[in-house]
Amino acid sequence: MELKSFLFSLIVIYVSARLLGELAVRIGQSSVLGELLAGVLVGPSLLGLVHSTETLTLLGEIGVMLLLFEVGLESDLQSFLRVGPSAAVVALIGVAVPFALGYGVAAMLHVTTVQAIFVGATLTATSVAISARVLSDLGRLQSHEGNIILGAAVLDDILGLVILSVMVGLAESGTISWLAIAQTAGLAILFLSAAVVFGHRYARLFSKLVNRLNTRGALVITAFTFALLLGYVAEAVRVAPLVGAFAAGLILARTEHQGLIEERLQPITDVFVPIFFVLVGVAVDLSHLNPFHSQNHSILLLAGGLTLVAIVGKLVSGWGVLDRAVNRWVVGVGMVPRGEVGLIFAGIGLGAHIITEAQYGAILVVIAVTTFLTPVFLKRLLEDRKRG
Amino acid sequence: MELKSFLFSLIVIYVSARLLGELAVRIGQSSVLGELLAGVLVGPSLLGLVHSTETLTLLGEIGVMLLLFEVGLESDLQSFLRVGPSAAVVALIGVAVPFALGYGVAAMLHVTTVQAIFVGATLTATSVAISARVLSDLGRLQSHEGNIILGAAVLDDILGLVILSVMVGLAESGTISWLAIAQTAGLAILFLSAAVVFGHRYARLFSKLVNRLNTRGALVITAFTFALLLGYVAEAVRVAPLVGAFAAGLILARTEHQGLIEERLQPITDVFVPIFFVLVGVAVDLSHLNPFHSQNHSILLLAGGLTLVAIVGKLVSGWGVLDRAVNRWVVGVGMVPRGEVGLIFAGIGLGAHIITEAQYGAILVVIAVTTFLTPVFLKRLLEDRKRG
Repeated sequence: MELKSFLFSLIVIYVSARLLGELAVRIGQSSVLGELLAGVLVGPSLLGLVHSTETLTLLGEIGVMLLLFEVGLESDLQSFLRVGPSAAVVALIGVAVPFALGYGVAAMLHVTTVQAIFVGATLTATSVAISARVLSDLGRLQSHEGNIILGAAVLDDILGLVILSVMVGLAESGTISWLAIAQTAGLAILFLSAAVVFGHRYARLFSKLVNRLNTRGALVITAFTFALLLGYVAEAVRVAPLVGAFAAGLILARTEHQGLIEERLQPITDVFVPIFFVLVGVAVDLSHLNPFHSQNHSILLLAGGLTLVAIVGKLVSGWGVLDRAVNRWVVGVGMVPRGEVGLIFAGIGLGAHIITEAQYGAILVVIAVTTFLTPVFLKRLLEDRKRG
Repeated sequence: MELKSFLFSLIVIYVSARLLGELAVRIGQSSVLGELLAGVLVGPSLLGLVHSTETLTLLGEIGVMLLLFEVGLESDLQSFLRVGPSAAVVALIGVAVPFALGYGVAAMLHVTTVQAIFVGATLTATSVAISARVLSDLGRLQSHEGNIILGAAVLDDILGLVILSVMVGLAESGTISWLAIAQTAGLAILFLSAAVVFGHRYARLFSKLVNRLNTRGALVITAFTFALLLGYVAEAVRVAPLVGAFAAGLILARTEHQGLIEERLQPITDVFVPIFFVLVGVAVDLSHLNPFHSQNHSILLLAGGLTLVAIVGKLVSGWGVLDRAVNRWVVGVGMVPRGEVGLIFAGIGLGAHIITEAQYGAILVVIAVTTFLTPVFLKRLLEDRKRG
C-alpha cells in the first residue's frame, strides 16, 4: 500500500465517520452507529472507496485496544470484582443459550453436524466495543449494568477462546484435546489474575518511572506503551489484546496521574477508534449476500432464525444478574452485538471450508443486525432509565 | 505483518526512543539525536528487533507530516514571505554547490559520469525534519533563522523534485524532457501559491465547519484530516506530503482555534513522530558498509570526500542570507542533514542499478554523519546565540 492510497483511505474514513456520526447524533442515535454505517457506505458494498488493508486493520486493532484502555481508566477494579458472580453467570448463559439455539436452528435446516456446531459457536461471541462505546458516550460506564457487561464480555472472551480452540481442533484432527483447552484457559486466567493481584505494584512502578522522565509527552506515551505492552502479553497468551489494554487501564486508574492520562489520551483515541468502527462496517460486505438473490429459501430461513436466536440468546443472559436493582434489559441488550469477534469466527469457518459461502452470508446478516441495532436500543434503554 | 509483531515493534520503538531521548537530554543533547540512535540500536545493524515494514513506514510518514503540520501551526506566513528572497538564495546555493562539489569528488575518483551526476544530485537533498525538531524543542521556530531554514527546505524540496525527474529521465531514456520538468515544477508552484493565496478562505471554511460539529474530538480530528488532505494533494502533484501538511499548519495558524488545535494535537504528534525518527535510524543499516571491510581505498576516499563536501556545500548556503542580522552559521548548519530525503534518493539509485552497493554505502556514511551531527551543532549554536 503506497502513501497516496493510505492517505486517501484515512481521509475518507475520517470524513465519512464524522459526517455520519454527527447525523446519527442529530437524529437521536449514538455516533458509533453512524461510524458503522459509514463503513458500509464507503466499503466495497456501496462506494468502494475503502478496502480493508493490513495497515488499516492494524490501526483499527490499536483503536479498539485504546477504546478499552480508556474504559479501563474510567473504571474501578473493586466494582468489577463485586459484580464478578453476576458477570460470570451472564457470560455462561450468554454462551450456552446462543450455542444451543444456534445449533438447533442450523440442525433443523439440514446442515451437517460440524457446520451446525460451528454456527452455534459463532453465535456465542460478544463484541464489547459497541456497548462500551455507547456506555461511555452516555457516561454510564461506572453503572452496575456497565460493569456487568464489561466483566461478562471479558469472561466471554476467555470462553470464546476455549470454544475456538475446540473448533480448530475439530476442524484439523476431528478430536478435542482437553489438555490444550486446559492450557489455553489456564494461561488466560493466570494473565488476568496477575493483572488484578499485582496491579498496584505496576501502578506504583509506572508513577515512579513517569515522575523521572523529562522529555515531551512522557506521561501519555508511557501510558500508551503500557497499554500496548499488556495487549501484547495478552495476545501472547492468546487472550484478546483489547482485554490486555483494558487491564492496563484498570491498573493505571489507581495512579495519581489517572485524570491527566485520560485527558491527554483522548485525542489519540479519537484518531484510532473511528478506523476500527468504520472497518467493521467495511467488513460487512453485502456482496456476500448474493446467495440470497437465488431465492434459496433455506438460507433466508437460516439467516432469519439465527438472527432471532442470536438476539434472544443474549437477551436472556441479562436474567443471570444476581442483584435485583440492576436493569436486566440493559445487560441483555449490551451483550447482543457480535461485531468484529463474530466476523473473525465466521471468517475462520469460511477460510477452513467448514461453512459454505451462503452460510457465511447468513452469519453476516446476524452480525450486521445485532451490531447495528444494539446502539439504537441500548441508548434508548439507558435514557429511559435515567428519566425513570 | 500480524498484530503481535506489530505491537512488539511499537513497544520497542517507544521504549528505546524514550530512553535514549532522555539520555540525550541529560548529556545536553537534543532528544531527536537519541531517537535516531535508538533506531540504529534496535535496527538490523545491531539488535535486529525492529525492521522497516510497510505499516511502520506509513505511520512514520504520518509522523513527519504531523511534525511539519505542528511547525506550520506555530509559524506565521507573513514572516515566511518576508524572508522569501533569502530562503530562495539559500536553497539555490545549497543545491548548486553540493551538486558541483559532489560531482567533482566522484568524477575525481573515476566513477562513471552518470554515477557522478547521481551522487551529486543525492547531496542536494535537505531533510527539514531534524532541524525543525531541534528548532521546535528550543522554541526557536519563529526566529529569522528558523523561518529561512524552513522556507529554503520547502524550495529545496521542489528543486529536488526537478532534479529527481531529470535523474529518472536520464536513467530511463538517457534524455532530459524539459516539458516534463516544467510541468513538475509548475504543479508544485501552483499548489504552494494556491495554499498561500486562498489560505484565509480555507481557514474561514474550517472554522465554520468545526463550529457546527458537536461530536467528541471534532476540532482535533478535523484539523488532523485537513493536514492529511493537503498532504494527499501535495503527493498527487508530486510535492513531498510534509510540505502539504506544513501548508495546512500555516493555514490553520490564522484561525481562532490555533491554540486549542496545537494543545490537542500534541499527544497525537507524540505518538507518530518517534516512529519516523527511529525508522530513519533503522534505515541507516550499517551492514551496507561491508564494502569498507575489503579495504577498498577509493570507497573510503569517496565516503570521506562526499561527507566533507556535503557539509561544506550546505554550510556556505548560509551566506546566501540577505539580512545581516541573521546568524549564517545557524542557517548553514540547519540545511546540512540529508536524513530520509537522502535515503530515498540513494535508494532509487541503488534500485535502478545506477550506483553500486559500495557507492550506496559511501552515501549512507554521508547521510548518517550529516543527520546525526546536525542536532549536536545546531543546538549548541542556538544556545550560544541565546546567551550571547
